[in-house]
Amino acid sequence: MRVLGVDPGLTRCGLGVVDGGGAGRRAALVEVGVARTPADEDVAIRLRDISVEIDSWLDRHRPDAVAVERVFSQANVRTVMGTAQVGAVAIVLAARRGLPVALYTPSEVKAAVTGSGRADKAQVTFMISRLLDLATPPRPADAADALALALCHVWRGPALARVRAAAASAAGPAAPRAGGPS
Amino acid sequence: MRVLGVDPGLTRCGLGVVDGGGAGRRAALVEVGVARTPADEDVAIRLRDISVEIDSWLDRHRPDAVAVERVFSQANVRTVMGTAQVGAVAIVLAARRGLPVALYTPSEVKAAVTGSGRADKAQVTFMISRLLDLATPPRPADAADALALALCHVWRGPALARVRAAAASAAGPAAPRAGGPS
Repeated sequence: MRVLGVDPGLTRCGLGVVDGGGAGRRAALVEVGVARTPADEDVAIRLRDISVEIDSWLDRHRPDAVAVERVFSQANVRTVMGTAQVGAVAIVLAARRGLPVALYTPSEVKAAVTGSGRADKAQVTFMISRLLDLATPPRPADAADALALALCHVWRGPALARVRAAAASAAGPAAPRAGGPS
Repeated sequence: MRVLGVDPGLTRCGLGVVDGGGAGRRAALVEVGVARTPADEDVAIRLRDISVEIDSWLDRHRPDAVAVERVFSQANVRTVMGTAQVGAVAIVLAARRGLPVALYTPSEVKAAVTGSGRADKAQVTFMISRLLDLATPPRPADAADALALALCHVWRGPALARVRAAAASAAGPAAPRAGGPS
């Protein structure tokens, strides 16, 4: 299972692709990077440029699923806005290709890769380097966070899909659904 | 000048197209409507379905510009999230077609069509009906708001473009920009 993780942001958008380790195999890094746009550029141009970059990652790596940071209950509307906007762009690009999209909160991602939902950036970067056997830790933190999102979905996605399928069959016929835990 | 106005929202996204009245001609309604998605659907599917709908409006009407509500400084992050997400989708779809995108705050739009930035929904709907000579007022409020955004840009867009061009020539050569007032 190949997953693209997206840590959304207008100034820095982390992008990371991981091949999932099924059957005891280790997960492996495919590519990691950061899409950047200048803060003094118009938001329409910034969103457009990031969307073109995400599309090129989807074309290049053909992931089976996309994992995006879920934004909610943060204090400051201003800081949350770019995250929500870029996240929506990533979600739409994936969904229009028919890819499943999973949303995870930062604490879900931290818990998945470090065991603690309150881990700091250094701990996440350290664990990502260990888990993917990287010689050098991914920088900046947005890149590490994108890989953490992808790894989180590699591990949690199949379980979530089973839960969802069980819920759907219990509830009777229903339309297929993308998206993460609601 | 033909403008698509987008009043973004996940549950109801207002869409309105207006042909601008240049040289003393009256602005005219082209089409108005609302894209709806069910609140219990996954956000990825909701954003995808709205993006397909906006694309179909862009294909059908070939606007010269797109005006989108600018989100900021609202109190509640949860209510603002869907607006930010759907707004970003509209912005990207327009920008990737090379269309200019203008962002206006609700009070800018209200002031443009009613003379007061604090007008209520009934006043906006009333004035839109008068300005576009509509036999029946557009419903729901999101539809009227989308038309108000489009009208706001029909009237303010050319002036803003002149200001921006003057600023750019004063500052020396610069990359062309889309977007509304910053």
